[in-house]
Amino acid sequence: MKRLALGLEYDGADFCGWQSQKHARGVQACVEQALSKVANQPVKVVCAGRTDAGVHATCQVIHFDTDAERTERSWILGGNSHLPPQVSLLWAREMDPGFSARFSARSRRYRYVIFNRWVRPGVLHRKVSWHHRPLDAGLMHEAGQRLLGEWDFTSFRAVGCQAKSPVRTLLSLDVSRRGDFIYLDVHANAFLHHMVRNIAGVLMAVGEGDRPMEWVSEVLHARDRTLGGVTASPHGLYLVHVEYEAETGIVLEPVLPEF
Amino acid sequence: MKRLALGLEYDGADFCGWQSQKHARGVQACVEQALSKVANQPVKVVCAGRTDAGVHATCQVIHFDTDAERTERSWILGGNSHLPPQVSLLWAREMDPGFSARFSARSRRYRYVIFNRWVRPGVLHRKVSWHHRPLDAGLMHEAGQRLLGEWDFTSFRAVGCQAKSPVRTLLSLDVSRRGDFIYLDVHANAFLHHMVRNIAGVLMAVGEGDRPMEWVSEVLHARDRTLGGVTASPHGLYLVHVEYEAETGIVLEPVLPEF
Repeated sequence: MKRLALGLEYDGADFCGWQSQKHARGVQACVEQALSKVANQPVKVVCAGRTDAGVHATCQVIHFDTDAERTERSWILGGNSHLPPQVSLLWAREMDPGFSARFSARSRRYRYVIFNRWVRPGVLHRKVSWHHRPLDAGLMHEAGQRLLGEWDFTSFRAVGCQAKSPVRTLLSLDVSRRGDFIYLDVHANAFLHHMVRNIAGVLMAVGEGDRPMEWVSEVLHARDRTLGGVTASPHGLYLVHVEYEAETGIVLEPVLPEF
Repeated sequence: MKRLALGLEYDGADFCGWQSQKHARGVQACVEQALSKVANQPVKVVCAGRTDAGVHATCQVIHFDTDAERTERSWILGGNSHLPPQVSLLWAREMDPGFSARFSARSRRYRYVIFNRWVRPGVLHRKVSWHHRPLDAGLMHEAGQRLLGEWDFTSFRAVGCQAKSPVRTLLSLDVSRRGDFIYLDVHANAFLHHMVRNIAGVLMAVGEGDRPMEWVSEVLHARDRTLGGVTASPHGLYLVHVEYEAETGIVLEPVLPEF
């Protein structure tokens, strides 16, 4: 039995998320089915970051155990031939048995893309989040700095979030504009359920002048989800990087979608 | 009766092209249906460049005649509310009755996007064309310069092309690489059916070293489609600009997709 790590990307628009739901198939089930065909035996996988329905990943990482002897190239090309076109395996690598795609990860990065134009997107439908009122990216950036550090992020956590602790460490948060696009880049040790989309919702309310900057701190310190803003659309969200502990030997580059 | 010009963008992946086919609906039919609802009377439209099945547009232009009195904002927002999410109306403007989205156009620009990586795309599925063998963009650029000027482009024309003359003037052709993406930008007075995709097919054969640069001239001068390369996938193709005669007063900026 050996353990493999594997990198993949996907457009999450047609999926109910990483995990399967009662009546809908998740990315995980597709990947497990494809790898099981390559391995000719059942394969179960564990991922670095479980993405929600509609959320994309340019840099997802999984691990799995198998007896099958295949080249790294065979895992990728064979797996891709059994996957829907929105999901693509990128690399594979044999690991120590102690490696975990989830628990060996030191931090994750997400990019949230807001298309800020008065008319809705067409070409980038389901690739971006749309906000039709003008947003001040500088203000959003400044307001977002109040969330840096180790906090109880209960106010930014989905009610159904299953994490044991609501404490996370936000390592960086950057908001920048290029043309009609606003990019919100967040880096944290780990994220709670809906955390990025709830941060995006709060920062957009500040960016359009609906709320003052101080409101971000108020929401954070209240530790009450009902005081936060709306959960922003999943379609602008991308898992773009997973950083692993040095001893794993896995060094990935962030893959930042730009439009 | 007045004449309106209207700009729009669309993801063509789910359409059989601009025009409807026997059993499939084109972008045109969707747009006519939406505008007819806004006008409360039948609307027929004429476009600047009829795109094929799977081809996208970031800068398509149409014109239509109507008795309906609506603000420019109402045409856009009303029309968008009746359109599928892959199609978005961007602007509207009242024109002189002599204006034609098609015949007043002086030139068109297309961008062809090739994703040049050994594994196929996932996130950008149906947004780009995929070529897994390494391509030399510099070579493709140099080879492409042989097509500049006024030529009989029969070798780059679909067999079913309905244009009266196969002569077109290619005003510029640029091939550049950014990361795994190769962008082929072409500018011509007008294009024949499949012309960009056939040029892309020939240049890719040169770019991967399968054919020498001189082959581009041979294909061009043979005026024989059967000597050309394969017609490249429609998913990498975007209509990105239409330039109008100065007297129309319509000045558009190219909208270049970048990834």
